[in-house]
Amino acid sequence: MTSRVSRLLGTRLPIVQGGMQWVATAEMASAVSNAGGLGLLSALTQATPEDLGREIERCRALTDQPFGVNVTMLRTVSPPPYERIFEVIVGSGVKIVETAGNVPEAVFARLRAAGITLIHKCTSVRHALAAQKRGVDLVSIDGFECAGHPGEDDVPGLVLIPAAVRALRLPVIASGGIACGRGMAAALALGAEGINMGTRFVATREAPVHEGIKQALVAARETDTRLMFRTLRNSARVLANAVSEDVLRLERRDGGATFDELRPLVAGARGRAALQSGRVDDGVVWAGQVVGLIDDVPSCAELLDRMQHECRERLAAAARLI
Amino acid sequence: MTSRVSRLLGTRLPIVQGGMQWVATAEMASAVSNAGGLGLLSALTQATPEDLGREIERCRALTDQPFGVNVTMLRTVSPPPYERIFEVIVGSGVKIVETAGNVPEAVFARLRAAGITLIHKCTSVRHALAAQKRGVDLVSIDGFECAGHPGEDDVPGLVLIPAAVRALRLPVIASGGIACGRGMAAALALGAEGINMGTRFVATREAPVHEGIKQALVAARETDTRLMFRTLRNSARVLANAVSEDVLRLERRDGGATFDELRPLVAGARGRAALQSGRVDDGVVWAGQVVGLIDDVPSCAELLDRMQHECRERLAAAARLI
Repeated sequence: MTSRVSRLLGTRLPIVQGGMQWVATAEMASAVSNAGGLGLLSALTQATPEDLGREIERCRALTDQPFGVNVTMLRTVSPPPYERIFEVIVGSGVKIVETAGNVPEAVFARLRAAGITLIHKCTSVRHALAAQKRGVDLVSIDGFECAGHPGEDDVPGLVLIPAAVRALRLPVIASGGIACGRGMAAALALGAEGINMGTRFVATREAPVHEGIKQALVAARETDTRLMFRTLRNSARVLANAVSEDVLRLERRDGGATFDELRPLVAGARGRAALQSGRVDDGVVWAGQVVGLIDDVPSCAELLDRMQHECRERLAAAARLI
Repeated sequence: MTSRVSRLLGTRLPIVQGGMQWVATAEMASAVSNAGGLGLLSALTQATPEDLGREIERCRALTDQPFGVNVTMLRTVSPPPYERIFEVIVGSGVKIVETAGNVPEAVFARLRAAGITLIHKCTSVRHALAAQKRGVDLVSIDGFECAGHPGEDDVPGLVLIPAAVRALRLPVIASGGIACGRGMAAALALGAEGINMGTRFVATREAPVHEGIKQALVAARETDTRLMFRTLRNSARVLANAVSEDVLRLERRDGGATFDELRPLVAGARGRAALQSGRVDDGVVWAGQVVGLIDDVPSCAELLDRMQHECRERLAAAARLI
């Protein structure tokens, strides 16, 4: 028996790779798909919709397995050309799209009409129920542990996953806090039918990230992430470094900090400077608390095989205790 | 095969009841022990060490199963008479003690010399390693989700449990975020060999708490707890109510609040007023995020039987997915 997640995605394993900005390229996504998981391309990593179209073609040349595209919809003053991005995705024949953020109803309708399987990523049961009502196929739910944006509710996976599973009829993909077979076993025991990993995939051989950053993730402990932008109600979990400390110093000031003060510290080139230079303090490094569980930099195939075995072993070992 | 936790505690199930102040009386502890778990009495709930001695005798009259005593060691200007409390515990023949907080070396030595099995409760891998080095028998590790004091590291169970299991040779009891067989299955899959539950046991028939509070726990969602005293670096997770809102309003003020300002809001009678009156806003109500997973008020025997079955079912169901 396979999970509904594997069936809907057409993958051997119910494991999805996070659509991480600056990381989720064709190299990354195809490596995960070739290893039996679902690779995702990050739409916003590409400079233009046309570049995204070429990246999709590149990924298709690198794998004959299913892969998808993540589109994160930001509310900003100058938003990316979403209309054209979705046009490219539909035109390319991609069959799986993961959305996050504030998705207009028309977007879901258009993607559904194109026969695309929809994963919507969110951080609360409330938003997951809304997505289910709007007709997505799968919900990916991000706990407090996750890299990037955990929302402002601060509910971790151990509680959020079963709460979501109980509330939803759709299959749930557990995201955040998972980096090994133990976490996968726990997520499936809690009722999720699949898992999503981001940080763990950054520390793989195929991730298009400087080796210095991969080694920084290996070295980091579970206490080495920080939540910044909490005072703006736009919390973001990142690796503790010089940038996060600068941001937090301003946020902790009496009266707090404004978006305009904080923006220069993290925007533009600083979004990927560290990933390229390998020097942790050069920019923002997104990372979840699972950095404390990462000890090596395997290939995606090694990682997924190991996880499948460890997951089975852990479930069997747990069953012997009770 | 039974877990090392069950073997060391002499219980049928590897389930420990939290030594909750004002809740963990002889009625509570004996009900849990009779149901196959480990009941704990809260030493600090009794007005004097002699009252604790009588409570231990009362518990012994109510169950022939193993039970223990929780002693939380606070750093306060006028500490409880710990010397005499441990004298009473050793004299009473109690065989299991759970400690929490700052435990002097002499206390561990004395309890060990009396042949007492020691559980030490802590909130970080760092403290767990220190407790292991100091010779405790079991470590109970509390994640960010837990009721009461989660520490200031904010690492939830999904990451903290495997991090602790990997670091320690002692058996780990997972605490915080668990209220049903799903959570128990997850904790065991993560490598814990037992679980601890507090909030879930407050919503049982035998808990010596007003029915109004049990129903408030049933009604609450996973988003209905608050962390107060964060600004004092003494975070405490409680049910959101008028008291927590008053505290948080002062803490959010520019410049924060002092201990002397906050103390009257939570001290003395307010510690148990709500538990006795059944009116949520009458005082502090400790609760973990698992309130969102609690739907009923069963007996302890019903709860533990149900959890054992659900745990087995969930592990088997998960194994079929992978």
